[in-house]
Amino acid sequence: MGRWEPDTRRRLAQAALELFIEQGYEATTVNQIAERAGGLTKTTFFRHFPDKREVLFAAGEQAHGRIVADAIAAAPDGATPLQAVAAALDALAAVFTEERREFSARLRAVILGNSELLERAALKRAALAEAMADALRKRDVPDLAASLSADLGTRAFYTAYDQWADTDNHEALVDLTRRTLDELRATLTTLG
Amino acid sequence: MGRWEPDTRRRLAQAALELFIEQGYEATTVNQIAERAGGLTKTTFFRHFPDKREVLFAAGEQAHGRIVADAIAAAPDGATPLQAVAAALDALAAVFTEERREFSARLRAVILGNSELLERAALKRAALAEAMADALRKRDVPDLAASLSADLGTRAFYTAYDQWADTDNHEALVDLTRRTLDELRATLTTLG
Repeated sequence: MGRWEPDTRRRLAQAALELFIEQGYEATTVNQIAERAGGLTKTTFFRHFPDKREVLFAAGEQAHGRIVADAIAAAPDGATPLQAVAAALDALAAVFTEERREFSARLRAVILGNSELLERAALKRAALAEAMADALRKRDVPDLAASLSADLGTRAFYTAYDQWADTDNHEALVDLTRRTLDELRATLTTLG
Repeated sequence: MGRWEPDTRRRLAQAALELFIEQGYEATTVNQIAERAGGLTKTTFFRHFPDKREVLFAAGEQAHGRIVADAIAAAPDGATPLQAVAAALDALAAVFTEERREFSARLRAVILGNSELLERAALKRAALAEAMADALRKRDVPDLAASLSADLGTRAFYTAYDQWADTDNHEALVDLTRRTLDELRATLTTLG
């Protein structure tokens, strides 16, 4: 990948989001996205993304799966499943810096307004849980415990993310995620 | 809805699945599905389903959400969140009778082989969890406890379903679901 490629990808994603907000997801074409990204062509768009929907998901999905898997693999030998998950959430939350909050909030609003995007978001969420569960199984965590810890971690991350992607919130995502995971852990004893 | 409507819907679903298995999901058209369902027309198909993908999901999704919500609402006043979820899973598992096992196994194989269907399945799963969480909140279960219990119930149901939708398995889904929920409950104390 050449020197300018990561920037092209980022510009395409930014342009797509702007257009989705301005004129709606359905009304936006790949040609318009490429044009808005600085006079690029449709061909360039398709070198980076398979379609206009994936522009909102493809980049994050792979990267986030890798981040949680690496953090779980790197957790100390004696770490419990939830301690390994906590390390994964710390690593993932660190990606969402303050300067990304507004972009994330706008992205979230676009997704919430479109059933096709909501559907894709549900798959992304499932993929994140599966990446965590897989990494836990590789640490010899039994299957159900791995799945359950991953479900808990995913629930903690998205609960915190929904609070963070709100312009009235001023906490760092890593703090919100830690607190939510602690709350979920405490809640486990109340389910009956 | 007229007397024959539920049967038409069922015939369309059965025809779609047969064609998806025989010639693949992508190669199958709505016209072919309608024709296979006993010489029906495309127009009839679209009175029942918005597109060929929904034929595999639309029916179950609403019905299953209602079943779990009703069972949770009907649980005794003193029931814990997980006891209410257990009642919901009993009610849902009862839908999947022995005579539906082979159909379910074939359906599952089709879905596992197609990313578009897998994506839709992830949304269906999220909708089931959300239906349980909503019903628990209506019982004044706090938000995180409601979400977590619903996640646990969803994990138990699909873990059991994956075993049941295997032609080598001969247990009733209700038994598999209960055992899996018990195992998950026991696992909760091992997560650290």
